[in-house]
Amino acid sequence: MCPGPSEVNPEVFLAMAKPLVSHVDPTFFALLDQLQGQLKTIFQTENICMLLSGTGTSGMEASLINFLEPDDRVLVGVIGHFGDRIRMIAERIGCNVKVVSAPEGKALDPDDVEIAIKGFSPKLFACVHAETSTGVLQPLEDIMNICKKYEVLTLVDTVASLGGVNVPVDSLGIDIVYSGSQKCLGCPPGVAPISFSPRAERILESLTPRNYYLDLRLIRKYWLERVYHHTPPVSLFYACNKGFDLIIEEGLINRFERHRKIGLALQKGLEAMGFKLVADKNVQNPVVTAVYLPAEIEDIKLRKILLEEFGIEIALGIAQLKGKIARFGTMAESARPQNVLYLLSALENILKRYKIFKESGTDVASSML
Amino acid sequence: MCPGPSEVNPEVFLAMAKPLVSHVDPTFFALLDQLQGQLKTIFQTENICMLLSGTGTSGMEASLINFLEPDDRVLVGVIGHFGDRIRMIAERIGCNVKVVSAPEGKALDPDDVEIAIKGFSPKLFACVHAETSTGVLQPLEDIMNICKKYEVLTLVDTVASLGGVNVPVDSLGIDIVYSGSQKCLGCPPGVAPISFSPRAERILESLTPRNYYLDLRLIRKYWLERVYHHTPPVSLFYACNKGFDLIIEEGLINRFERHRKIGLALQKGLEAMGFKLVADKNVQNPVVTAVYLPAEIEDIKLRKILLEEFGIEIALGIAQLKGKIARFGTMAESARPQNVLYLLSALENILKRYKIFKESGTDVASSML
Repeated sequence: MCPGPSEVNPEVFLAMAKPLVSHVDPTFFALLDQLQGQLKTIFQTENICMLLSGTGTSGMEASLINFLEPDDRVLVGVIGHFGDRIRMIAERIGCNVKVVSAPEGKALDPDDVEIAIKGFSPKLFACVHAETSTGVLQPLEDIMNICKKYEVLTLVDTVASLGGVNVPVDSLGIDIVYSGSQKCLGCPPGVAPISFSPRAERILESLTPRNYYLDLRLIRKYWLERVYHHTPPVSLFYACNKGFDLIIEEGLINRFERHRKIGLALQKGLEAMGFKLVADKNVQNPVVTAVYLPAEIEDIKLRKILLEEFGIEIALGIAQLKGKIARFGTMAESARPQNVLYLLSALENILKRYKIFKESGTDVASSML
Repeated sequence: MCPGPSEVNPEVFLAMAKPLVSHVDPTFFALLDQLQGQLKTIFQTENICMLLSGTGTSGMEASLINFLEPDDRVLVGVIGHFGDRIRMIAERIGCNVKVVSAPEGKALDPDDVEIAIKGFSPKLFACVHAETSTGVLQPLEDIMNICKKYEVLTLVDTVASLGGVNVPVDSLGIDIVYSGSQKCLGCPPGVAPISFSPRAERILESLTPRNYYLDLRLIRKYWLERVYHHTPPVSLFYACNKGFDLIIEEGLINRFERHRKIGLALQKGLEAMGFKLVADKNVQNPVVTAVYLPAEIEDIKLRKILLEEFGIEIALGIAQLKGKIARFGTMAESARPQNVLYLLSALENILKRYKIFKESGTDVASSML
């Protein structure tokens, strides 16, 4: 129940274990076309879509280095650790970076974003959709509309949301968007889906990123014109092809509803047991739930008990939330009723040992599943 | 019979399909330790070893951006396409780059390297061990000794050689070395082994690379101190763990001898049939064999016939050798007698169709296997 890597459907593992073909084999080129089509469906976009040969962080890096130059003005919305990582990479590029942030557990206030854009006139506004470090789901509509109004290029990190929460790229008007394979997409880690608009493509043409491996002009040349750039992770592409099929077969709307329902049941169960959620109710992400731990329970101890006695893997706090919280993922195959009830039962058992058990969370959750 | 991806042992595929664990799970940390130990054996080094979450090209990029700054002097030995890629990445960093090269099919002349070092005083000398684009295997001993004499930092690309040809890192005194998983290491593509000396590590400490994803200081912190940086491709790490086991079980010396014998049989067979090898005899790589094609046979046609009628995948020329040559890989599981004889038989069949058959290559090869 980690917020990534999530559980993987056995069919995806089977697809991954198929014999390799060359990265210039006609069947592999056909696979690239299929993957592009699948990504267009999942990102809900007509823009170009590709898979990068790296993890979500490589998607973040590619989304910045290919569109920004030193001294470019960048406004970064920071609501947790991964927003801060965007800031840091933009600073490494040498950009002039300004941050707009929100208090712990809250989303960005659109008014703050508008004020910052007016005063700073950035080339690009970047933010994280589902902030894995806090469980906050950033509402995008208002801030994307503000960016549109001021003609600011937009970049959204959907590493933890794509495939589990609605990300309608074209209707929101997102210019650059990336994700990671191992969360709500339900595939093994190692691949970063990316998509960018014609407006972003025009910027792409005008600059040479310092990084060669993640040069999107060259990677696009491979995807569209079959010009060799590097050998992609063929097996992981097979896995994604099957994993994306499963998403499309389930249907995006059904899938979002499944994640919503499962996440809500978990959250209501945890609250019934006395846990306080890190994220505000109105911006709580269904796929990542972060809770403050009671003073009696040390986070590392909790993780150890859950793993060793119950076989449940969870995540803890990072950066300023280190030592204070626990994080649970209900993503892709991990978003199943049995997982929620098993986790809640295990937590009840542990609360009893610490003599801080109040009320059953499984009762609340099971009535909602 | 592509020079990568090569065939993968079914045991490696099985290992890759194991259920995922988190990147901070104790069993995964134990796997990182195992992988480090295996890499030390395979690289024949006491230096730090890690796997990067990307392909061989990510290893090339990481090996340059983490040790070089703008204006640093870099001498690049270029004997083909991949050496030229090193030059280009160093130029993107903003380095002052000088090239020492060799004619088509030849290796670098140590005297040329020494003259260039004397005149240019580079901080780093970089070259490719097995140049996949030509089939040349660059002898390393003399040029590494020259670098030692002038205290120049050394970087060697072993993407196409590691696991198939001897790469004794410590005895050669290589400071920075990287490879790719999908060639002689016999694993699926997507992972780049890397190793660097204490001397290189001191340089690492002194600079901040512009790239965050391939920041070796942060990746080292994950491998050694378990500090989260990004989620590695867990499944590919499982695959490498099994693939490296198979290499160590076979024994490095046995493995090099197998590759030497198989490669030589293929080359003698091809020569008997009238093909001219691109690489000079004394620097012919056993694992990549490149041949000039007779005027009658168009390269794309040849690749198509071999793939569609015989199910054999081969590679063609890149850059200045485009349209002129064909390239065959005898790497890892692909380095087997049956593959050599099957390829030679298929080529004989095709030469007969073109009415340019001279002499049987299978006879020559089979007597050597």
